[in-house]
Amino acid sequence: MAGHDINAQTGVDMANARRKTSITIKHVRNFLHGGQEEWTKRQKILEVLERDEVFDKSQRDFMSRTERYSRGLAITNRIYELQETHEWSQQETNLAFAALDESLPIGLHNVAFQPVFLSQGGRTLVEKYGYIISTRGILGCYLQTELGHGTNVAQLETTATYIPESKEFEIHSPTLTSSKWWIGALGKTSTHGVVQAKLILGGQDMGPHLFFVPLRSMENHKVLPGITIGDIGPKALGGYSPTDNGFARFNHVRIPKENMLSQFAQVTDEGKYVQPPHAKLSYGGMLYIRANMVTSAGWLMAKAATVSIRYATVRRQGERGSDGLERQTLTHPSVYYRLLPILSHAFVFIQLGKSLVKAFEQMSSRLAKGDTSLLAEMHATTSGLKVLVSSTGVQDLEVARRSMGGHGYSVFAGLGRLYADYLPSVTYEGDNFVLDQQVVRAALKSYRALFSSSNPSSSSLSPSSNYLRLLINPKTAPLTSAPAAAAWKDPATAVLLLEWRAALIVHEYAKHVKDPDASVNQRVAKAVTEAFVGAQVAEIIKGLENSGMGEKERKTVEKVYLLYLLTTVENGLIDLLSFGVLREHGTKPGDVTRTLRVAIKELCEELLPEAIGLSDAFGFSDWELDSSLGVYDGKVYESLWNRAQQEPLNQTEVPAAYEQSIKPMLERGQRQAAKSRSKL
Amino acid sequence: MAGHDINAQTGVDMANARRKTSITIKHVRNFLHGGQEEWTKRQKILEVLERDEVFDKSQRDFMSRTERYSRGLAITNRIYELQETHEWSQQETNLAFAALDESLPIGLHNVAFQPVFLSQGGRTLVEKYGYIISTRGILGCYLQTELGHGTNVAQLETTATYIPESKEFEIHSPTLTSSKWWIGALGKTSTHGVVQAKLILGGQDMGPHLFFVPLRSMENHKVLPGITIGDIGPKALGGYSPTDNGFARFNHVRIPKENMLSQFAQVTDEGKYVQPPHAKLSYGGMLYIRANMVTSAGWLMAKAATVSIRYATVRRQGERGSDGLERQTLTHPSVYYRLLPILSHAFVFIQLGKSLVKAFEQMSSRLAKGDTSLLAEMHATTSGLKVLVSSTGVQDLEVARRSMGGHGYSVFAGLGRLYADYLPSVTYEGDNFVLDQQVVRAALKSYRALFSSSNPSSSSLSPSSNYLRLLINPKTAPLTSAPAAAAWKDPATAVLLLEWRAALIVHEYAKHVKDPDASVNQRVAKAVTEAFVGAQVAEIIKGLENSGMGEKERKTVEKVYLLYLLTTVENGLIDLLSFGVLREHGTKPGDVTRTLRVAIKELCEELLPEAIGLSDAFGFSDWELDSSLGVYDGKVYESLWNRAQQEPLNQTEVPAAYEQSIKPMLERGQRQAAKSRSKL
Repeated sequence: MAGHDINAQTGVDMANARRKTSITIKHVRNFLHGGQEEWTKRQKILEVLERDEVFDKSQRDFMSRTERYSRGLAITNRIYELQETHEWSQQETNLAFAALDESLPIGLHNVAFQPVFLSQGGRTLVEKYGYIISTRGILGCYLQTELGHGTNVAQLETTATYIPESKEFEIHSPTLTSSKWWIGALGKTSTHGVVQAKLILGGQDMGPHLFFVPLRSMENHKVLPGITIGDIGPKALGGYSPTDNGFARFNHVRIPKENMLSQFAQVTDEGKYVQPPHAKLSYGGMLYIRANMVTSAGWLMAKAATVSIRYATVRRQGERGSDGLERQTLTHPSVYYRLLPILSHAFVFIQLGKSLVKAFEQMSSRLAKGDTSLLAEMHATTSGLKVLVSSTGVQDLEVARRSMGGHGYSVFAGLGRLYADYLPSVTYEGDNFVLDQQVVRAALKSYRALFSSSNPSSSSLSPSSNYLRLLINPKTAPLTSAPAAAAWKDPATAVLLLEWRAALIVHEYAKHVKDPDASVNQRVAKAVTEAFVGAQVAEIIKGLENSGMGEKERKTVEKVYLLYLLTTVENGLIDLLSFGVLREHGTKPGDVTRTLRVAIKELCEELLPEAIGLSDAFGFSDWELDSSLGVYDGKVYESLWNRAQQEPLNQTEVPAAYEQSIKPMLERGQRQAAKSRSKL
Repeated sequence: MAGHDINAQTGVDMANARRKTSITIKHVRNFLHGGQEEWTKRQKILEVLERDEVFDKSQRDFMSRTERYSRGLAITNRIYELQETHEWSQQETNLAFAALDESLPIGLHNVAFQPVFLSQGGRTLVEKYGYIISTRGILGCYLQTELGHGTNVAQLETTATYIPESKEFEIHSPTLTSSKWWIGALGKTSTHGVVQAKLILGGQDMGPHLFFVPLRSMENHKVLPGITIGDIGPKALGGYSPTDNGFARFNHVRIPKENMLSQFAQVTDEGKYVQPPHAKLSYGGMLYIRANMVTSAGWLMAKAATVSIRYATVRRQGERGSDGLERQTLTHPSVYYRLLPILSHAFVFIQLGKSLVKAFEQMSSRLAKGDTSLLAEMHATTSGLKVLVSSTGVQDLEVARRSMGGHGYSVFAGLGRLYADYLPSVTYEGDNFVLDQQVVRAALKSYRALFSSSNPSSSSLSPSSNYLRLLINPKTAPLTSAPAAAAWKDPATAVLLLEWRAALIVHEYAKHVKDPDASVNQRVAKAVTEAFVGAQVAEIIKGLENSGMGEKERKTVEKVYLLYLLTTVENGLIDLLSFGVLREHGTKPGDVTRTLRVAIKELCEELLPEAIGLSDAFGFSDWELDSSLGVYDGKVYESLWNRAQQEPLNQTEVPAAYEQSIKPMLERGQRQAAKSRSKL
């Protein structure tokens, strides 16, 4: 009956967990953050933000959408003010935005509008507007999708008709469905936009091209004549609240000819079309966005892991032990089996993102010289990874949220917010189902190229199709029985299985290419991408030797990566089993997947004492996480209590609804009850 | 260039799809709704609601939480006013609430507070308050969970100490973590509550018991002395906005002794405890809630299917065909493969819910006579089904939403709202991971009971463990190769596979019960529940003969059920493969799962022309669905456009944020750009 003080116990549990960690957190943190210097830089910026009340998050969850929009712009303005004051570099400003955890309209200017303008605008146009765009003296958006059309730009309806007489283009939305729709920062913010429209020359449709179009007056921000603009309304689940995704209809709006983005396609004064040298050159920007998505997904998973592992460390539930305390929920197999893989995803994608950005930079510098040799590989890799990280990220956020039981459904838990904002990543920048097709197409192409030769050689294989080497030499047959328990400790076992899975599934796909089943694209793309990531993870593990971490940290981090590999194999079991790569152990009956499942459980148990240390190594502050359940000191109940007091409904004792509805309902009920009683 | 009018085409596509349906929708509708009479009753109520502006949904998505709360109570008051006016029966009133698609505080009075009070209150207490509770002359809530404790009621901290001197109980919250938390309708609405607290008699803890406690003044709705009450704040993703989930702390609050709910446990005036005859009798209410969850999940899946299938019928994307039109997205395998199974889930759970409610009623009438023989079976069945329907429902809503691409992320798509409200179903009424354990325990018990006999007989097996019969006769060996294409057309193939999967997995679990892997509970529980549902679906299919539907409808509906079975087998492939139930076809290499995958694809293709007809048969009105993408006439783009115009941000041309933040930002940028230029 006396019992423990459960609130005090949360703090004790967290402190104990930190004491038990054997790793030096700082070393792992520097590994993840790319060195002590980067970490220090980041901390300096965070100190500035956390001290500034403009970035206060305490009222955010109670705000209406209009308030969230206004707050978002106030934040943005403040960041650029701070940038000027503190002379932050571009990278430092990016760090500040990343720390904010807000879906801001300015993101569309910085990530969509400006890169497209700079990379595709002709020299004259860039000279005229480049500066003012990069200092945000005008604010832009990128108008591609329409009410009736998404990623399939070939079918867009908006037209840009060249008028040779006045050397102008006329931008026009001929139909309701040609209204530009979903355009971030268009609804209320942007002064200018890059509009994708069908170029019409002398009545002929030349396909989609880009045009720089003023949208609002620089005097008073009013919408310019001939244009109808508005916000498209709230997003599902309250996601992207601060962003004004908008619509626009153009009614024969004239722009000067020079406003066509003409780096790769031009129109002469007379209205003749000049062909672009290489159409694919315009892909660069999209690939950069996708490469960056890997890193940011990694950090998002890191947040999910930090919050849920911290909560599961202090939350106790179940039978009481000999110490009179219930069990920490993290010790329940059903909980750690869900949370530790999320931690491993974060470690994988944070590191993988770094090497992808490097690969992107290499490709870009080659592209600048007209060398497109790396483009196809980059395209195949980033398409598959975009699908993998976005679907894994969305899933991890929800798995982590759900692991927190009832309290996970409170907005103060913090993960719902991240989920709502991250959810569209599975459909934007290429719908995942569309990208899957591209991965499959690339895989089939590599497969056919390899076997079109009478003497296939693995030397021609790129990293993303390297798994196909297994099909060349028939002596390298699949495993004939499931690996024994010990074999799972070697990362090579899992990597080889993932590669065999990809190889056999592509081989099978090629066989039935004319009669595929309905889910084959998803299955093939996943297998191919996971084989690539598996091989990359093996490289990361090798690289740990030179990571600057100590022995203990290296061993622990290696286990995290191994957990990634084993759980990826587990999720690919259907394929491994259906192609007979994993089979029964000779005549022994029973579950052929058991050694793997037990290996995963044991690995999780080895990692459990390090879970808090590994989460701390991500280095998030309480302000960044903005989660009652993920507070550093573990005092989750105090935090929930304190936040609840601020709920607007609690600012009056009796709600307005009492006089309006509750009282009439009570009175009716009392009257009816009296009537029923009187009938007795 | 001329092109089609894409907006007009949406209406044409929908009309064409309706024309192509071969089934008579009315017949299937009556099958789902339980007959023409029930359908007519429902329609009459809907007409009343749709005509009444209190139930207008057009501003709902723009409201703050406080506004949603006030609207929710206004709606509730109006329903009871209409009930009185139209003399609606209880069932008709329930139909009205179900049609509203709102998470209302009154639900907690009706589904938690009132049933608990009536079933567990002693005769005197029920006589005193029964009427006024059932007419809502007082409004109640059920206070179980605490800030520091969830479903594990044995560990609750709130105390109810008996004071023999005054014949009172003193309700007390000794700690912060003992605050009641998450209690629906407590925050601002309820006048009374049933509080779960540890009964303390003479210093001894007698475990959790229930007490009827006044919370607010019946004069002015103010919180009574000694109690601190408030709303716990917003829920994740904006879910349950209209419900005031609340907290309460009790500071030595006295209630008369008669306020203990004493149907099954009593305290004498002197403070002696009188034992309940059968503790489990109190489970009834929870089982009823769970049985009802199956039906309501079915209708929720029906909404997801209707909206997404309608949108996929009118949305066109991809290459243009010979008619100059892009493909309807529903014809893409990756789309129909995701959506038709959702339709099949709806058909299964709507029908299964009906038989469960019947089974529940049968059990209740036996329970009333003290016969508990059906309780264990009902408990095992509903635990597993609760997990299955809630996790499937959440998943289906998201799969359907995601299938709609970009527009699916608009709040006007309608499915995000349903998702946010349905999400907590995976954690409330028993967290799914906790319930899984109970299913596994029940399965193991049945397994051991069966094989404890030297001569095991299947006659002792209940429907939920009937699959274990396969283990009795070793002659009934698993299939030795994958079924041929034709075999998948017989529902018996899939049902037998699901039963074999359950039987072998329970057998394996029993073998390793002391050394389980980390995910075994989820795996076993799913297999066991799906075997039960599979067998039930076979029964439903047999029952179609007497459904009153015509031949065409019967054949089509049977295919829907078959699709359920085949896709369930597909989702259970890992187990089927790892236990060798599905194996390679002799020496033929390749994918052993291919015949199943192709069978699913072909079945989907047979169902495609009927998809709109089958969705229409659910019978939802546009007002009920409240979805721009699911409008009956197919004019999705018009609907999106019209709704967007109402967005609050669109009510002013220049947002307030312009003067506050946008203008300063533009001016700073222009100044910086000028400075950079001047440096050149």
